[in-house]
Amino acid sequence: MPPPPEYFCTGNIAKGFKLKNMSQSVFYHAGCPVCVSAEHDIVNLIGAANVEVVHLGEDKARIAEAEAAGVQSVPALLTPNGHVLHINFGAAMADVKA
Amino acid sequence: MPPPPEYFCTGNIAKGFKLKNMSQSVFYHAGCPVCVSAEHDIVNLIGAANVEVVHLGEDKARIAEAEAAGVQSVPALLTPNGHVLHINFGAAMADVKA
Repeated sequence: MPPPPEYFCTGNIAKGFKLKNMSQSVFYHAGCPVCVSAEHDIVNLIGAANVEVVHLGEDKARIAEAEAAGVQSVPALLTPNGHVLHINFGAAMADVKA
Repeated sequence: MPPPPEYFCTGNIAKGFKLKNMSQSVFYHAGCPVCVSAEHDIVNLIGAANVEVVHLGEDKARIAEAEAAGVQSVPALLTPNGHVLHINFGAAMADVKA
């Protein structure tokens, strides 16, 4: 069978993209006491369904993603519109990576 | 007419207390660009009805209240349970008071 013409969508264009709730915020932390307290406050304020919690100490694969988003210290909240709110101060990203 | 017995509530016990929505947070700021950006993010995240916005530069009478709550810099969010989330860094309270 010949390949489909180029204007046909062969169905794998979106391969590699992860489905994500675009209205969700991401809370990055490293398990420190300042982080845990801020996490409780943020979840209480905006609701658990609206925030993905990422522990960078346990999930080091996501450190690069956090840094690319502008996270300089933890705890930090990445809002749905791409702003980073650095909340109090738990640890610098350099310490999280160490 | 004799005064009412002491077990009567004469209706002014709550005088001087301001009615307040206890589930409301308070966002303290000083009008700086960092503050304005964070204010928009916080209002978007938790809803305008759930946060009282206080401009300490225009309402200096509330600086003492903010400091008593633990606010050290602005912008800061005082949560309903009394925690202070210092968000990014706009200005120190010393500069707000100046």
